[in-house]
Amino acid sequence: MLGIETDWSETEKQLAQAAFKQAYNRETETLVSEIRDKAVAITEIQDIWMLHDFLSARRHEIDGKYEDSYSAFIFVFARLVKENWLTLEELSGLQADKRAKIAALSRM
Amino acid sequence: MLGIETDWSETEKQLAQAAFKQAYNRETETLVSEIRDKAVAITEIQDIWMLHDFLSARRHEIDGKYEDSYSAFIFVFARLVKENWLTLEELSGLQADKRAKIAALSRM
Repeated sequence: MLGIETDWSETEKQLAQAAFKQAYNRETETLVSEIRDKAVAITEIQDIWMLHDFLSARRHEIDGKYEDSYSAFIFVFARLVKENWLTLEELSGLQADKRAKIAALSRM
Repeated sequence: MLGIETDWSETEKQLAQAAFKQAYNRETETLVSEIRDKAVAITEIQDIWMLHDFLSARRHEIDGKYEDSYSAFIFVFARLVKENWLTLEELSGLQADKRAKIAALSRM
C-alpha cells in the first residue's frame, strides 16, 4: 500500500498497535459470529459453496486491510474508522497532524 | 482426466447418470453435515481460516472428481467405489467388461 512516512513516538506506537489489534479483534469476532449464523442455515451443497465464496472474499479483504506497518497506519486507520471498527476518539492519543490526516481520509 | 472410450447403451447411460448423481448427493450431503458440525465448534478467527482451507481443498477435490462424461466414467466410478460413495452392486446393470475394469481400478 502507498505509505505516508511519519515519525511515531514510542507512546504513539503503543497506542497504534493496541488500536490496530482492537479493530482486528472486533472485525474478526464479528466475522466469527456471522459465520456461525450462516452455518446454522446451511442445508445443501450450494450453501456450502456460497459460504466458501464468502470466506474467500472476506479473507482476502482482511488480509489486505490489516497491514501492520507504521508507514501504512494512517491509511489503515482511516479505513478502519470509515468502516466503524475504530473511532477517532480511540486514536486521540496520536499527534494532531496524524489525527487530522486519518479523519480527512476516513471521510473520503 | 485420461479417458477410456467405451460404448454405453441407453440403459447403461441412465444407470451411470443415476449412480453418478447418487454418489455426488451422498458425498455432498456428508460434507454439509460435516461443515455444520465444524461450524458449531468455531470460536475464533483461526477456526474460520481452517474452515476456509478445508472448504477450498474439498471443493477442489469434488470439482475434479465428478467429471460428467462417459469417457471418464470408468475412472470416476472406480474412485467412487474405492471411497465408498458407490458400491459395485449399484453398478451391476453395467456390462461385465465395464464392471470388471471398475472393480480392478477400485482396488488400486
